[in-house]
Amino acid sequence: MENRKKIQIINGPNLNLLGIREKDIYGTESFETFFTQLQIDFPEFELYYFQSNIEGEIIDQLHKVGFGFDGILINAGGYTHTSVAIGDAISSINAPTIEIHISNVFAREPYRHVSLIGKHCIGAISGFGVQSYRLGLDYFTSKQ
Amino acid sequence: MENRKKIQIINGPNLNLLGIREKDIYGTESFETFFTQLQIDFPEFELYYFQSNIEGEIIDQLHKVGFGFDGILINAGGYTHTSVAIGDAISSINAPTIEIHISNVFAREPYRHVSLIGKHCIGAISGFGVQSYRLGLDYFTSKQ
Amino acid sequence: MENRKKIQIINGPNLNLLGIREKDIYGTESFETFFTQLQIDFPEFELYYFQSNIEGEIIDQLHKVGFGFDGILINAGGYTHTSVAIGDAISSINAPTIEIHISNVFAREPYRHVSLIGKHCIGAISGFGVQSYRLGLDYFTSKQ
Amino acid sequence: MENRKKIQIINGPNLNLLGIREKDIYGTESFETFFTQLQIDFPEFELYYFQSNIEGEIIDQLHKVGFGFDGILINAGGYTHTSVAIGDAISSINAPTIEIHISNVFAREPYRHVSLIGKHCIGAISGFGVQSYRLGLDYFTSKQ
Amino acid sequence: MENRKKIQIINGPNLNLLGIREKDIYGTESFETFFTQLQIDFPEFELYYFQSNIEGEIIDQLHKVGFGFDGILINAGGYTHTSVAIGDAISSINAPTIEIHISNVFAREPYRHVSLIGKHCIGAISGFGVQSYRLGLDYFTSKQ
Amino acid sequence: MENRKKIQIINGPNLNLLGIREKDIYGTESFETFFTQLQIDFPEFELYYFQSNIEGEIIDQLHKVGFGFDGILINAGGYTHTSVAIGDAISSINAPTIEIHISNVFAREPYRHVSLIGKHCIGAISGFGVQSYRLGLDYFTSKQ
Amino acid sequence: MENRKKIQIINGPNLNLLGIREKDIYGTESFETFFTQLQIDFPEFELYYFQSNIEGEIIDQLHKVGFGFDGILINAGGYTHTSVAIGDAISSINAPTIEIHISNVFAREPYRHVSLIGKHCIGAISGFGVQSYRLGLDYFTSKQ
Amino acid sequence: MENRKKIQIINGPNLNLLGIREKDIYGTESFETFFTQLQIDFPEFELYYFQSNIEGEIIDQLHKVGFGFDGILINAGGYTHTSVAIGDAISSINAPTIEIHISNVFAREPYRHVSLIGKHCIGAISGFGVQSYRLGLDYFTSKQ
Amino acid sequence: MENRKKIQIINGPNLNLLGIREKDIYGTESFETFFTQLQIDFPEFELYYFQSNIEGEIIDQLHKVGFGFDGILINAGGYTHTSVAIGDAISSINAPTIEIHISNVFAREPYRHVSLIGKHCIGAISGFGVQSYRLGLDYFTSKQ
Amino acid sequence: MENRKKIQIINGPNLNLLGIREKDIYGTESFETFFTQLQIDFPEFELYYFQSNIEGEIIDQLHKVGFGFDGILINAGGYTHTSVAIGDAISSINAPTIEIHISNVFAREPYRHVSLIGKHCIGAISGFGVQSYRLGLDYFTSKQ
Amino acid sequence: MENRKKIQIINGPNLNLLGIREKDIYGTESFETFFTQLQIDFPEFELYYFQSNIEGEIIDQLHKVGFGFDGILINAGGYTHTSVAIGDAISSINAPTIEIHISNVFAREPYRHVSLIGKHCIGAISGFGVQSYRLGLDYFTSKQ
Amino acid sequence: MENRKKIQIINGPNLNLLGIREKDIYGTESFETFFTQLQIDFPEFELYYFQSNIEGEIIDQLHKVGFGFDGILINAGGYTHTSVAIGDAISSINAPTIEIHISNVFAREPYRHVSLIGKHCIGAISGFGVQSYRLGLDYFTSKQ
Repeated sequence: MENRKKIQIINGPNLNLLGIREKDIYGTESFETFFTQLQIDFPEFELYYFQSNIEGEIIDQLHKVGFGFDGILINAGGYTHTSVAIGDAISSINAPTIEIHISNVFAREPYRHVSLIGKHCIGAISGFGVQSYRLGLDYFTSKQ
Repeated sequence: MENRKKIQIINGPNLNLLGIREKDIYGTESFETFFTQLQIDFPEFELYYFQSNIEGEIIDQLHKVGFGFDGILINAGGYTHTSVAIGDAISSINAPTIEIHISNVFAREPYRHVSLIGKHCIGAISGFGVQSYRLGLDYFTSKQ
Repeated sequence: MENRKKIQIINGPNLNLLGIREKDIYGTESFETFFTQLQIDFPEFELYYFQSNIEGEIIDQLHKVGFGFDGILINAGGYTHTSVAIGDAISSINAPTIEIHISNVFAREPYRHVSLIGKHCIGAISGFGVQSYRLGLDYFTSKQ
Repeated sequence: MENRKKIQIINGPNLNLLGIREKDIYGTESFETFFTQLQIDFPEFELYYFQSNIEGEIIDQLHKVGFGFDGILINAGGYTHTSVAIGDAISSINAPTIEIHISNVFAREPYRHVSLIGKHCIGAISGFGVQSYRLGLDYFTSKQ
Repeated sequence: MENRKKIQIINGPNLNLLGIREKDIYGTESFETFFTQLQIDFPEFELYYFQSNIEGEIIDQLHKVGFGFDGILINAGGYTHTSVAIGDAISSINAPTIEIHISNVFAREPYRHVSLIGKHCIGAISGFGVQSYRLGLDYFTSKQ
Repeated sequence: MENRKKIQIINGPNLNLLGIREKDIYGTESFETFFTQLQIDFPEFELYYFQSNIEGEIIDQLHKVGFGFDGILINAGGYTHTSVAIGDAISSINAPTIEIHISNVFAREPYRHVSLIGKHCIGAISGFGVQSYRLGLDYFTSKQ
Repeated sequence: MENRKKIQIINGPNLNLLGIREKDIYGTESFETFFTQLQIDFPEFELYYFQSNIEGEIIDQLHKVGFGFDGILINAGGYTHTSVAIGDAISSINAPTIEIHISNVFAREPYRHVSLIGKHCIGAISGFGVQSYRLGLDYFTSKQ
Repeated sequence: MENRKKIQIINGPNLNLLGIREKDIYGTESFETFFTQLQIDFPEFELYYFQSNIEGEIIDQLHKVGFGFDGILINAGGYTHTSVAIGDAISSINAPTIEIHISNVFAREPYRHVSLIGKHCIGAISGFGVQSYRLGLDYFTSKQ
Repeated sequence: MENRKKIQIINGPNLNLLGIREKDIYGTESFETFFTQLQIDFPEFELYYFQSNIEGEIIDQLHKVGFGFDGILINAGGYTHTSVAIGDAISSINAPTIEIHISNVFAREPYRHVSLIGKHCIGAISGFGVQSYRLGLDYFTSKQ
Repeated sequence: MENRKKIQIINGPNLNLLGIREKDIYGTESFETFFTQLQIDFPEFELYYFQSNIEGEIIDQLHKVGFGFDGILINAGGYTHTSVAIGDAISSINAPTIEIHISNVFAREPYRHVSLIGKHCIGAISGFGVQSYRLGLDYFTSKQ
Repeated sequence: MENRKKIQIINGPNLNLLGIREKDIYGTESFETFFTQLQIDFPEFELYYFQSNIEGEIIDQLHKVGFGFDGILINAGGYTHTSVAIGDAISSINAPTIEIHISNVFAREPYRHVSLIGKHCIGAISGFGVQSYRLGLDYFTSKQ
Repeated sequence: MENRKKIQIINGPNLNLLGIREKDIYGTESFETFFTQLQIDFPEFELYYFQSNIEGEIIDQLHKVGFGFDGILINAGGYTHTSVAIGDAISSINAPTIEIHISNVFAREPYRHVSLIGKHCIGAISGFGVQSYRLGLDYFTSKQ
């Protein structure tokens, strides 16, 4: 078990409200609860969770894990569409990074169709609710 | 007096310089001094003041008061025009939120004519100097 | 009472239907009824009301009161977004003029996010229903 | 015959010149002559005709008949492409309204491809010369 | 009866699903059933019906009937907005062609407001449900 | 003198304020005074003057003189940039029409760089103050 | 085993060349070979494979399986960015559909950043090579 | 003669009408007749001709000859401006491909100035009537 | 006569062909012949004529006369729409400069509607054929 | 030989560096050497060569040969994308003119996809290296 | 030495990775090491260094030193292109501020060609690697 | 001293007016005087100065020195924003080239924010008055 891959999940702004806001859309489960279930379902990984509403703290965290971890799932929330700086951070690090979205961004406002981080990631998964995170982890599993 | 409505005023980047910068435009009064006067003039409200230059801390504050307060006045400064994330935060909370601007943004550069938070607020007041905040409070008064 | 400030309220196209159309949105009260209440609530003002669906008549009215009145509230309706000529009229006169909207224009179609009159007004108030007019009058009160 | 449907035809700017201007394109028949023929050919309708070059008068007429008539055919001429206010008027009334054009607007200048009233109408008929009006009346016939 | 005008109706992609998909919008009647009724209601025409989901087959059909038929009604569905080639085909043939739409395209997504075939047709009828086809046939009737 | 050319000068919105508004820019002379001088200086013309703030009245006037007069000078003010309908009116009439502007529209806001009437006129003169009208009359003189 | 979910994989233009073209990017394995492996790895599904370079045949296939199958994975290739019609087809059917891409479209030309089918799908997976298809199937597995 | 280079000419939509439509522009000669002449004039090539109105069939043909032939001349007609998929097909194959146009596309509508296939071809020849094909063949001759 | 105002006329690219090219539009008179007539008709001026097809030589000439002459008429031809540098030159000099065009640029291609020199001139005259130059000289006359 | 067609080749900016700059792309042969070979290979033409880095000198040369020569090949280099004036020059002359490019402009930066001269030429040939010039000459040969 | 000018260097997001990331581009030297060298090479300045990945902390620092320091060099990294707020901060302070970039932003993606802070700085230096900072300091030296 | 680096300074249009025009902005010193001072201050360089208002002469000069000199400072003035050809020239030569501007182009009109030469230079320095040239020379010094 000690050779488990280290995977960091990074959630951006407002994702700390999961389970609290707009429950009809996002359900009543908090991300923390969901994360605990992920740890059980993916025992082959050492999973870490980080959330911040501050763009620069997300960059800090990418720097911190980006040279030693085996993979990153990032749901940058609203920063997806406005942050050149987070895109640059992903481009600077070594860990393969996947862009994650809970909702189908292409079915929402036009300004959410643009991703400033997408080109720096290896791929993107969006629209499957919190299942999007599972599929991201599946990718790291299937690569082994 | 204990049933007073709780109202949060949130000021974004550079508004901490009020009274210091460009005094010919903004006057020599700091926002803190003005805020003290507001508390006197609107005794029917419990008024709170928060200022940060950090986008994410503004989001944090919106989350903190957004489910318990009776109203929010937000002058997001330069983030008004660039922050999808603050817009999402306002959309996520329950407290009715009003977009405030000291200057008439429509008389300034074109990039200030776009508001990424406007559609998530109930309304907007701009151009009346610091009086804009008073008019915002008037709204909460008149609703009673 | 004879030194009361003279304030002109100008409503543009389709605002004569208030209380008749889309009652679930705009309520069943006509603007005339509301105006009568305003006169009672703001005894410090001589209030005048003018409505026209004709762009040029609105300009005529702005010319007529714009050099003698103490303030103007204008809700130019659909002309807000298309009339360079009304903007020029406001720019030509002396009376401080406030742009008023009943609905939150930023939460509607993109072509309503553009105001051709905004930069010529001292400020704008939008989204508070007919309360928007009250807040505009509050401004003239608070300036005294 | 007394239960005939009431249908209003509204023509916008420059359509009063029909039969006078550009006769090779529009023919030598005035709209009034054509309208008399329509009344003969559609005895099942009480037909009314209104023309104005003034945007606001067209709005006035829409308000006047829009709550009592059974249908409206509107050829807003040049205002089709520039009038948010006429679009709002159509949106405010109850009578089903059809957008009519004599020429094929899509075969003309790009600025004529945009209609600011189209989305508020039930449908549009363009390009069939004055026959476009007949087809519009056919619709109200066929609906019975 | 033998001198009846030959009219071709061409339906493009997804219109074969009429009566099956989104029944609340489009009703439960298939186009085939509706077409049979049209043949009864317009005995003065020899009516032909062609449907294909394949852009090039629509072009083939336009070529086939475009030099011998008396008129064409084309509802190119989604190809309306993307097919330069169908527009070129209509431009190449002799038969007068009318653009038909069941829904009001101007009340839908912006990309549906653009027609690449409109300028090559004599006119357009949109928004009247399947009645749009009847109005198109009315045009060919009234021309006689 | 009885064979003098008939020339109509048409002024659009806000030009009735000449001599009243922004006197440092436009001077203190009203257009009426200037017009009297023009009549003296150009005795070879029968000069007529019309001003309206109403778009449709300008169209009405164009129709009224457009088939009998020898020339028209039109300063459509703010409608220059927004009125397809006035452009269509000029296109419909026979009298040669010249677009006039007092200020240099190309040195002002970008939305004033667009003229919707220019292509329907024979030429344009802008930026010479009220001299622009004189130069327009010079053209009709020099053509003789 | 007889209650296995039916899943259709649809590949659009040029994907038949997998294993033949640009082998350094896409590898030397044909999609058929990969599909056989998928059938082995996902025994809980009845998997079907369809490929066509013809836009309309893809629409036909969506219609054919869209009302009876349990899910669809569609990699529309170049049609992703140009086909309103395929988007409409997905919108018309009942089967949940996932947009799949082998390459990271956001790291390629700007015209590949636009998807005309995305908003009609439940979600999108791109950039993981042929693993993208596996993750799509994982979604249908995890939903059970 | 057996070592003659194999060259495929591919014509897209509406080019089958050459000699039939718009004869004043395109002449009365069909492409088949012209092709026979080309075979006589270029005996050093084995020339093949393919025409289809179906985008996907053009892709199929490119795949079929693209790995064995010595050169391709493609006149994709209207698909030139709308088909990402044909562009991808050309990019996928080995045979050097030349974009051909009969008319000067730059002297036509703006949407014809954009080529989605041009960057995948080695070069383009447009505007020389059917001579454009001859010049394309000249290129393959001169390369020897 | 010795105190006559010095006026420079500067013509840009292709205007040397006047009288040679497109005679039906521009007439058969060369600019030199016309210039001689101007000298006769405006004896109150010392008129100078300069033509060059070279952008920088036009700038040189502007520099040469721009500090000593009383006025400049410039018809920059095609450089009107592309030359920031000529605009800068006009902005740098003292002599009042008028933009002249023979044709009505607003009735031509969209790229001719943009002037990069207009805002640096005092005014513009376009569309009156070579009369445009006369009107420009009239301006300098009337100013005296 | 005395009736040989006169053909002018005009090369624009930086083409004098052929054989010197970027030799891996453009080869080590100068245009002069290549031109000598062209003269040998096309004895049926009197070939002339002109190169200038100065936009206006290119216009001068077009004027000089444009009324007497039988054809012109122009590679305007960077001026292709910025020169309205060269386009106007080609439009003014009689000699049929062909736009030539050595590289495939559609495979380069977007600003090279726009040609301001293309619509004034009879056709364009791009992407075949210096062979592009040969193909242009072939056109003049084949026309005989 | 005690009257040395105080100069603040501010580095934005990801610049803390200098010497770690993309070493082939940025070299292996950390900014801290380089800064030490700068202090040696510019003894006439008191140099201070601040780096943060957090937009608001950069604003805080600008406020802190902006009223007392003699100059600021700011490399805002990715925030250069997205931060209205940092631009506002620079505009609010007194210290002359220079925009610095290590790479040539104009040779990178189009979104890096836009600077939201440039107009508030006195000048910009980009593309010289870490030498860009030296040149910025040279400016403050040469001003003395 | 004989091994001094050769550096060419190239100034574009209107820069010959330095010291003459807009003295309040640019000062009363001519560039020639400033250049003499530069030669004194940078004895380690052989400095050459070239100015032309003609785009093509600037290209000629770039060609002339671009293969033998050690560096070039170019202030292309208005051509910076419009000349693809100068950009191509810089791209063709070997000497490292620096883009120089006296004023802060980002604080001026939007069309000055675009540089067509920037991506071909190694870096850019703008906004420091004539000091910008000194900083450019500093770069060549510091590289030694």
